Amino acid sequence: MGSMFATCFLLICFLSVGAATCGYESCPAVKDGMINVHLVPHSHDDVGWLKTVDQYYYGSKDDIQSAGVQYILDSVIQALLKDPSKRFIYVEIAFFARWYREQSDSLRHQVKGLVNNGQLEFILGGWCMNDEASTHYNAIIDQHTLGFEFLRHNFGECARPRIGWQIDPFGHSREQASLFAQFGFDGLYFGRLDYQDKDTREKSKTMEMVWRGSPLNLGSVADLFTGVLYSGYGPPAGFCWDIGCSDEPIMDDYRLYDNNVDERVAEFLKDVKDQASHYTTNHIMMTMGSDFNYQYADHWFKNIDKLIKYVNILQAKGSKVNLLYSTPSCYTYNLNKANQTWTTKDDDFFPYAHRPHSFWTGYFSSRAALKGYTREANNFLQVCKQMDALAKLGNTDNSSKNIQIFKEALGVAQHHDAVSGTEKQAVAYDYAERIANGINECQKVVNDAYKYLLPLSSDKPPAQVYCSLRNISRCNITEESKQLQVTLYNPVGRPVKSWVRIPVVGGSFSVVGPDGAAVSTQVVPVSKETKAIPERKGSLADHELVFQASLPALGYSTYFVQATTQRRSNWEQKTFQRKVNTDTVLKNEFLSLTFDGNSGKLKQMVNLETGISLGLQQDFFYYVGYPGNNSESEFQASGAYVFRPSDNNTHNLNMVSTQVRSYHSQGQLVQELLQTFGPWVSQVVRLYEGERYAEFEWTVGPIPISDKEGKEVISRFSTGLNTQKTFYTDANGREILERVRDYRKTWKLNQTEEIAGNYYPVNSRIYMQDKSQDIQFTVLTDRSQGGASIKDGDLELMVHRRLLYDDSLGVGEPLNETGSDGRGLIVRGKHYVFLDKIEKSAALHRDMALKLYMAPSVSFSNATTKQAEWAAKFRTIWSGLNGTLPANVHLLTLEQMASSMDYILRLEHIYEKNEDPVLSKPVTVSLQDLFVPLTVKSMTELTLGANLQLSDLHRLKWQTTDSKLLFKPKFARQSDPLSVTLNPMEIHTFQVTLG
Amino acid sequence: MGSMFATCFLLICFLSVGAATCGYESCPAVKDGMINVHLVPHSHDDVGWLKTVDQYYYGSKDDIQSAGVQYILDSVIQALLKDPSKRFIYVEIAFFARWYREQSDSLRHQVKGLVNNGQLEFILGGWCMNDEASTHYNAIIDQHTLGFEFLRHNFGECARPRIGWQIDPFGHSREQASLFAQFGFDGLYFGRLDYQDKDTREKSKTMEMVWRGSPLNLGSVADLFTGVLYSGYGPPAGFCWDIGCSDEPIMDDYRLYDNNVDERVAEFLKDVKDQASHYTTNHIMMTMGSDFNYQYADHWFKNIDKLIKYVNILQAKGSKVNLLYSTPSCYTYNLNKANQTWTTKDDDFFPYAHRPHSFWTGYFSSRAALKGYTREANNFLQVCKQMDALAKLGNTDNSSKNIQIFKEALGVAQHHDAVSGTEKQAVAYDYAERIANGINECQKVVNDAYKYLLPLSSDKPPAQVYCSLRNISRCNITEESKQLQVTLYNPVGRPVKSWVRIPVVGGSFSVVGPDGAAVSTQVVPVSKETKAIPERKGSLADHELVFQASLPALGYSTYFVQATTQRRSNWEQKTFQRKVNTDTVLKNEFLSLTFDGNSGKLKQMVNLETGISLGLQQDFFYYVGYPGNNSESEFQASGAYVFRPSDNNTHNLNMVSTQVRSYHSQGQLVQELLQTFGPWVSQVVRLYEGERYAEFEWTVGPIPISDKEGKEVISRFSTGLNTQKTFYTDANGREILERVRDYRKTWKLNQTEEIAGNYYPVNSRIYMQDKSQDIQFTVLTDRSQGGASIKDGDLELMVHRRLLYDDSLGVGEPLNETGSDGRGLIVRGKHYVFLDKIEKSAALHRDMALKLYMAPSVSFSNATTKQAEWAAKFRTIWSGLNGTLPANVHLLTLEQMASSMDYILRLEHIYEKNEDPVLSKPVTVSLQDLFVPLTVKSMTELTLGANLQLSDLHRLKWQTTDSKLLFKPKFARQSDPLSVTLNPMEIHTFQVTLG
Repeated sequence: MGSMFATCFLLICFLSVGAATCGYESCPAVKDGMINVHLVPHSHDDVGWLKTVDQYYYGSKDDIQSAGVQYILDSVIQALLKDPSKRFIYVEIAFFARWYREQSDSLRHQVKGLVNNGQLEFILGGWCMNDEASTHYNAIIDQHTLGFEFLRHNFGECARPRIGWQIDPFGHSREQASLFAQFGFDGLYFGRLDYQDKDTREKSKTMEMVWRGSPLNLGSVADLFTGVLYSGYGPPAGFCWDIGCSDEPIMDDYRLYDNNVDERVAEFLKDVKDQASHYTTNHIMMTMGSDFNYQYADHWFKNIDKLIKYVNILQAKGSKVNLLYSTPSCYTYNLNKANQTWTTKDDDFFPYAHRPHSFWTGYFSSRAALKGYTREANNFLQVCKQMDALAKLGNTDNSSKNIQIFKEALGVAQHHDAVSGTEKQAVAYDYAERIANGINECQKVVNDAYKYLLPLSSDKPPAQVYCSLRNISRCNITEESKQLQVTLYNPVGRPVKSWVRIPVVGGSFSVVGPDGAAVSTQVVPVSKETKAIPERKGSLADHELVFQASLPALGYSTYFVQATTQRRSNWEQKTFQRKVNTDTVLKNEFLSLTFDGNSGKLKQMVNLETGISLGLQQDFFYYVGYPGNNSESEFQASGAYVFRPSDNNTHNLNMVSTQVRSYHSQGQLVQELLQTFGPWVSQVVRLYEGERYAEFEWTVGPIPISDKEGKEVISRFSTGLNTQKTFYTDANGREILERVRDYRKTWKLNQTEEIAGNYYPVNSRIYMQDKSQDIQFTVLTDRSQGGASIKDGDLELMVHRRLLYDDSLGVGEPLNETGSDGRGLIVRGKHYVFLDKIEKSAALHRDMALKLYMAPSVSFSNATTKQAEWAAKFRTIWSGLNGTLPANVHLLTLEQMASSMDYILRLEHIYEKNEDPVLSKPVTVSLQDLFVPLTVKSMTELTLGANLQLSDLHRLKWQTTDSKLLFKPKFARQSDPLSVTLNPMEIHTFQVTLG
Repeated sequence: MGSMFATCFLLICFLSVGAATCGYESCPAVKDGMINVHLVPHSHDDVGWLKTVDQYYYGSKDDIQSAGVQYILDSVIQALLKDPSKRFIYVEIAFFARWYREQSDSLRHQVKGLVNNGQLEFILGGWCMNDEASTHYNAIIDQHTLGFEFLRHNFGECARPRIGWQIDPFGHSREQASLFAQFGFDGLYFGRLDYQDKDTREKSKTMEMVWRGSPLNLGSVADLFTGVLYSGYGPPAGFCWDIGCSDEPIMDDYRLYDNNVDERVAEFLKDVKDQASHYTTNHIMMTMGSDFNYQYADHWFKNIDKLIKYVNILQAKGSKVNLLYSTPSCYTYNLNKANQTWTTKDDDFFPYAHRPHSFWTGYFSSRAALKGYTREANNFLQVCKQMDALAKLGNTDNSSKNIQIFKEALGVAQHHDAVSGTEKQAVAYDYAERIANGINECQKVVNDAYKYLLPLSSDKPPAQVYCSLRNISRCNITEESKQLQVTLYNPVGRPVKSWVRIPVVGGSFSVVGPDGAAVSTQVVPVSKETKAIPERKGSLADHELVFQASLPALGYSTYFVQATTQRRSNWEQKTFQRKVNTDTVLKNEFLSLTFDGNSGKLKQMVNLETGISLGLQQDFFYYVGYPGNNSESEFQASGAYVFRPSDNNTHNLNMVSTQVRSYHSQGQLVQELLQTFGPWVSQVVRLYEGERYAEFEWTVGPIPISDKEGKEVISRFSTGLNTQKTFYTDANGREILERVRDYRKTWKLNQTEEIAGNYYPVNSRIYMQDKSQDIQFTVLTDRSQGGASIKDGDLELMVHRRLLYDDSLGVGEPLNETGSDGRGLIVRGKHYVFLDKIEKSAALHRDMALKLYMAPSVSFSNATTKQAEWAAKFRTIWSGLNGTLPANVHLLTLEQMASSMDYILRLEHIYEKNEDPVLSKPVTVSLQDLFVPLTVKSMTELTLGANLQLSDLHRLKWQTTDSKLLFKPKFARQSDPLSVTLNPMEIHTFQVTLG
């Protein structure tokens, strides 16, 4: 008997898991001729917001918010197992992965069964639901790849997400849609769009459309069916049945006093009718869930069960409404089958206002330090993955585990309440701590990689030491060592030259390069302003040693620094204070910047090559944050989400302009002008030798609040350019969108905020053009910021905000960051400014933007060996590439796959069509012998998320109302199986097998 | 293969349910030499409080309180099914029964399995957890029998509750303990006792004891092991893991940042140590739950699982603490096995204060109308059950269903937030509505019974009509009919004479009795005060027709009323207004009452038989409710729970005493004096012909609040008796407890409230004795009230309260009842006063109390037939008994069993030992030929709750520290198998099989 039992049970197991009918085939039946209401049980689980991601997972600190994801997944899975008609979607893999690893094998087995039969569907499938305004495309792709890989590895194809589900982010980027399309998604749904836009779409029944994510470059590849949810992402009003809601349950025992079946059914049918009147097919979708719902899943499910029962029972009496448990993908599939034509959209959904005066454009700049840290960390993650791959550490040690920790940290940091800056302070600290820990893990990996890459023999190289506070001229090892090796890894697939600045004590150093040749240096004093930064306490550095490093493609160089006793031996520098009435000029071979002798402020910029001369003022101002109680839109306060200035005037820093103190440092390598705009704003303007950009390093803070006013600080560049209300911003660091002041492309705007309503996210660059003069003025940023052109010829970027009122959108705290001394936080960052002809500008900003987010990683050692000694034991220069990638091609990703010995490689054409006469052309790259340490045997093209062979992708096709049939770029597969041709803006993702 | 499967599954089913190892044998293993911590998962589910019982069941109105019992039971059952180590206790059968009837057969089957293996244990097992201060023993027994019968019928012996679980009631009655012991319980646990008492018990390690429920009368039969819970009924502070709690979960993933296992374990071990230091065995019990906890059971269980795991894992390192899932019965069983001796207690746990100034003695009187209605309804339920049984309706119609509705309504009404008056107003209305509906259902039953009992032939009697507003002289049928039949059913097992008062229009009526003989009548005018009651609006009655009906034992009589045109034919009445300076005397053959000619108030009472003459003042006063914010004990407000006068003075009704208006009505049958103490207090004092009591019918309200003061109105009787601080109150209508002012028997009282701290519950009577003069002054009530003797010789009863502040104990509303006109509620009730020698008094109050709560049920018909005609068709008098029960025996229960054709019969000796020289003696009753319509074939004695044969009851035995070994009354089984001997205060419960 015993063995027969076992057989039976095994059989049952096999049947329940083996018969995978996932995908659209597993969708529930619908009824023709009826309104089919797709009820989608879901939980929106922020990976950090009011609580940290750990606290949310465990349900810790429930006094802040009742939310415990472990219970959601526990109870939902049980509910699904009990009833095969039920469905649930799960979104945030950061949570799912940690839950899954805590489960028993048998439960995991059951969960697989639910995935295979379509009951549990993964939607979106990123590590988080990322923010769209302040995230960089590299990070978006990475965080999705991280989630996708978890799903692919553990569940296979049935778990592949097909739908984008950006239900909560505060505005929607076109690039996000493009990336989703390239992930292979068939649809995208979201809950937040401008209230005027929504109103228009409801009236015109254009709540659902085909969004063209890259109309110019990628064409139909980036088309994405997109739907606006009707009730945000919640249920119809009155039908929230979560354990924390207080809407009335369905009470159906006729013996009880409070039986309310008829009443509740009637109410729901009214909601169905309302919603259906704004959509065009016989299908509508209702999101039955909300933030952290389904902690006790049956609370919801029991009532939905009854709702379905009592609504559908009316069909026997002629009702034409059919309720069913469904999912967004099954809803999408039914819309697609409806064989209808859809309108299109080719701009984006920024900015988002939920009512008059309430523009969610503050978060474009909120938490400037966290935004900067996240960008910087992404850079190091790429370095880490590349070096892990090039050193082939995957075979030998724990590197994949270490990298995974960093990936997960950056995965959660992309969340729409993380890098967005809309989390509570304690949670912001948690994100930063996770990133710091991730960096630490990857420092181990990089060190391990150097152990393989550096030695020429069996000698063990000294450990590489990192200095995370170099931006404030602090670094223990460089301050304490007389002899240093500086090793810089360049993650770009081309050689780069990089300016290195090292905090040092004393003013006399010699530097030799990897080949032993002396390198020019300059020593710049650390300013009084920098010395005053509290986080610098204890630092001895009084100078920065500056030199330029030359780095090979995808490789490193080591430079050797030696303190000397010579004074001014190989460098020359003059420092002098500004003289009133005497203009100061910074000038290199390409640019000159003139600062007014009276105000001390910039007044002119000249491109010396082209002769373009521009009257250019640059100054800092602030808006006063509106101090409202948020009770009505007119009392909307400025806060973490919302930017709302008290009036439309900018305020100067309460100093007359002549009070700008400035200090000019002029040398062979760099000329710097320190401008002190007041006690809490200063700036160093730099021109490096041989560079076409001017660097503006601003330092803002502590923003004073003793006057009880919140302040939002901007840097504004004012030119006389005739820009015709138009300016340009990038979307997530990739394609450029045109912005027109007080204008929206798809609806007639009733502008309620002249400033805030014209702000757009700037992830990497903002520019304006004067077409009559053929001038483009471009500013690149080192992090995401809000930016605008409020007046023709002006560009402004919001660099820092400190506010005293909560804007009442959930976070429950004013955005009032403080530094280590308890005073307001000081933030330091950089703007890079180009002035050139329009057609020459793309080459400048595309190349520069790439170098900024893929900057070299600098590390130090202090072996007491000179270059020659060192070079005998270690490679002082090494490139992972044979040759170099073309100037328009970027090696976006090189990493070892977590679950195999294969590699993921992404190659990107970094130019848009028509941006540059040469660089915008298609380009072909061959992997044959490309990598020095890796021999590519074969390559398989994957979807962008690396979770499906591209040849296996079959996206749904949609007919559109516009006659314009979008092109599909030619997939120009070369005869060479190891080569690929890249059209503008294309990213090709490969699984690479080594020989 | 198919059939083999079926066999296997059947086998599994049989095993899981068949192997019942419930009871103490199913208790989990404990570890010797360790502190065994019995973790008891539980949910305290009020059957109405802030929400109605239906709302609580469904989780409706969760904005008031997040509480949905359906989810509790759903999720707990699933949790138990998943893990056989888990246990749960369930308490309130009102909820469980409605949940159970909604479940599928297969789930019911699984639930039975859980009951049979001891995982799901029913504790207490009443329909509710009844209040102990304002409930009547008859209702307590009934509501427990109702719950027990559900459990017995559906689950059998494994579901029989063994433990009393009064965790929330606000003070504890000794009678409750006695009844529990007689239900066969082995223990009782509760959470609330006076803070000083608790402190004393913690220090002296007497938190657990043997409580002697009836030390004088029932002896060891009423002994009950009793434990005080350590943390109320909640978990140790910081360990509430319900979904609504915000205590920290156990976070045990070492990969996460917030791992807190060590910290949480250490904290819990400290709590274990603390608690164990106040108890005497190696076992402690922790209540892991609270109000409406376990809506999502796994939220709790998951964390307890981890707690057990991580605490017990330390045993390997020498820890001596052992955690286990357990139940109160398993805990009790282990204490019993500890073979220890225990202290005893023989008084009660009233009054309860949780801190200084916060005596929960207000609820003794809160909602006086609901308290009265509940008592009155219980009376009618007994009538209904008796008549159903006597007419043997069980065989023929829906009566059991109708009666069940009424039983359930009264079942929930006994709840400690129902009759207690501590529920929200909306919930109070719901209780009243349920009772009203129950009464309506039972009126159908009684009508059906009359259809069997009345007819002599096939004639169908007219429907019996009821008048629920006779107390305010309103009754449609009697007002509108010139000819009436009044049928009165007497539920007492002896003939009674009953005063009938019928609202009529006009002043001239003739009444003949069942035998056709004329009956004396009197017509009393309806007073101006009564006419002003808003609920009387529309009533035409201007008089009340008064006559005395003579009723047979357990039977009915019909009286015939005819309006006549004669004036003053057979009655005589004088009405006149009080003359100042002339005393008014009411006088019958037994008593005289003298009212002062100046004040209009009572000044003397004389017992004409014994010649006892007593200076007696009776007057109304009020206390002003303390208007605090409850932030500290000194700011404790008077509210629904707490009685706290602003000062210790009573306030008169703001009228000089001479302003008492009075109106004297003197007739042959009754003499009445109407006293109007002011615009909102009046009283009618009555002496009926041949009665030994004086009746005081008080009408209080609308209590004015325009002065912003809450008022608590008392009726005070002041005598000069030397009562030595001592007075006596009944416990739930049965045994009498001695009360001594400012004194507690088991601890040294630090009195913080001279008035409120001396209040005790009066369910049916309060009296005082002057032993030197051999005088007893006794007041009976018609409902539960708070009472006290604040000064020697005084007795006061609180009749009505209206308050303006919430007392911050949860209900969240001030006790501010209004009537149908929106003004303060008017309440009318009665006090019955006896003055006699001490040894003669018991016979008076025992008999009277019985007649009050088992009063005749009066119904009307208006057939146009005279007596003779009627008598030809219908029995005008009928008794269900052959003969009569002895004067000291009460037929407490006669009802058909819900699940069989047998009957439940309870016989009660209604005297205590030594109360009366004759009536306190044992008495024997034989059921042989006792009932006219029922032939008793056999009888089996059951426990008091009628859920076990008494011979099968084996309660745990406890050794006590006092040497006094309590007697066990002789169970004097007669040779006659159909007879029973009753010792004082005994109740014998029989299952009676008819021949």
